[in-house]
Amino acid sequence: MAYNEMFQYSIISALMDGVASHGPPVARILEHGDHGLGTFQNMNGEMIVLDGQVYQMKADGSVVHIKPTDTITPFATVTRFKPTEQRRATVVGKAGLEALLTGLFPNAKNHFLAVRMDGVFRKVNVRTAGGQTKPREGMVDVCARQTVHTFAGVKGTIVGFRCPQYVMGINVAGDHFHFIAEDRQRGGHILEFETEGDVDITAAQMSNFHLELPTEDDEFNDAELKLQAQGIKAVEG
Amino acid sequence: MAYNEMFQYSIISALMDGVASHGPPVARILEHGDHGLGTFQNMNGEMIVLDGQVYQMKADGSVVHIKPTDTITPFATVTRFKPTEQRRATVVGKAGLEALLTGLFPNAKNHFLAVRMDGVFRKVNVRTAGGQTKPREGMVDVCARQTVHTFAGVKGTIVGFRCPQYVMGINVAGDHFHFIAEDRQRGGHILEFETEGDVDITAAQMSNFHLELPTEDDEFNDAELKLQAQGIKAVEG
Repeated sequence: MAYNEMFQYSIISALMDGVASHGPPVARILEHGDHGLGTFQNMNGEMIVLDGQVYQMKADGSVVHIKPTDTITPFATVTRFKPTEQRRATVVGKAGLEALLTGLFPNAKNHFLAVRMDGVFRKVNVRTAGGQTKPREGMVDVCARQTVHTFAGVKGTIVGFRCPQYVMGINVAGDHFHFIAEDRQRGGHILEFETEGDVDITAAQMSNFHLELPTEDDEFNDAELKLQAQGIKAVEG
Repeated sequence: MAYNEMFQYSIISALMDGVASHGPPVARILEHGDHGLGTFQNMNGEMIVLDGQVYQMKADGSVVHIKPTDTITPFATVTRFKPTEQRRATVVGKAGLEALLTGLFPNAKNHFLAVRMDGVFRKVNVRTAGGQTKPREGMVDVCARQTVHTFAGVKGTIVGFRCPQYVMGINVAGDHFHFIAEDRQRGGHILEFETEGDVDITAAQMSNFHLELPTEDDEFNDAELKLQAQGIKAVEG
């Protein structure tokens, strides 16, 4: 796939409906990109794809380096990331990063963005989904049991995407960031962060979106996939 | 592009917001498929792509064979169509075609379908959008002035797509069919039809959806693109 095109397997509404038993090997997702987010079978942890390496961030805050041929994913989003914008800047927290991105891409509210931020974090609050207790358990229930961790004084990287409002239900409208520490031992879905000193932001606008749907997957075929915008905001916002 | 993958330029919400001044030459759309639907600059008529040929169905019910290099489109959906299902059947009208498709693809409610139907029509009611009177005029207003034609005793072809509910706003959820007569002199967006004798239906399920967004298009960048599900149903249902 060309640089800075977004590839997605399945849709977020399927996770909301608990469709998380099946999916392709992560290796097949990596054919489409080296930078991204996702989850694992049974929503067991958060996925981060950074420089082509795949990590599973687990409910205890720890991280496992994944062998992509041995692991499947029911939902993932990646891009072959080639930043078109690069800034060293002061970014106070999540709202500051969001404002900076809007400033970097003033005409991109109806497009997608791929984002990376490297720096030292005074504090990072993350949550991690601990997995389904039974097949088809929905994401709202799974995330009701999420664990929250705070990492202090940690160097690391944020990987994320911004999606336009009109993809709500297919992906998460707005910003969606995961964090992983430089030592690859800690990480999760970002709730909030505080930086220490300047950080490096790289980003690119994306105007091509490729969606691959599960096939021969009864869970997906049977799912209602009604738009649950409030629910998605609650668990992914 | 592989067979039976759906390619789309821009989103239906952009047409709702009147974003129809710019777009690529139709020739560039044809690189992705030979079967599809769309519209033209300023929503001037309905597009049908049949066996790789592009026709503009105009507000007076007539049809123009388009030279794809000389014409641009602000919105189009195509696939490289290779039917996986084929039936000769009695199809009473639009609801009958819809029921037949559901029967042919019982596990496809969350996927896309590409559809073609060839036959003799006792009656075909079509509407055709006559174009914007000014830039950014929205589709609801444009379609308020649509013309409706009835063709009687005509041999012809239906080209269409079925889209899953969750793409509402990006495309039209549900079924969307255009008609063109065998003599390529009449056509439009189908409101209702009645057949005469058996018809030939070919169709394929599609599990890959490729979306290309307009770039460097101020109209698109400025548009609100709020979901107008009721409006889309009213003008495209």
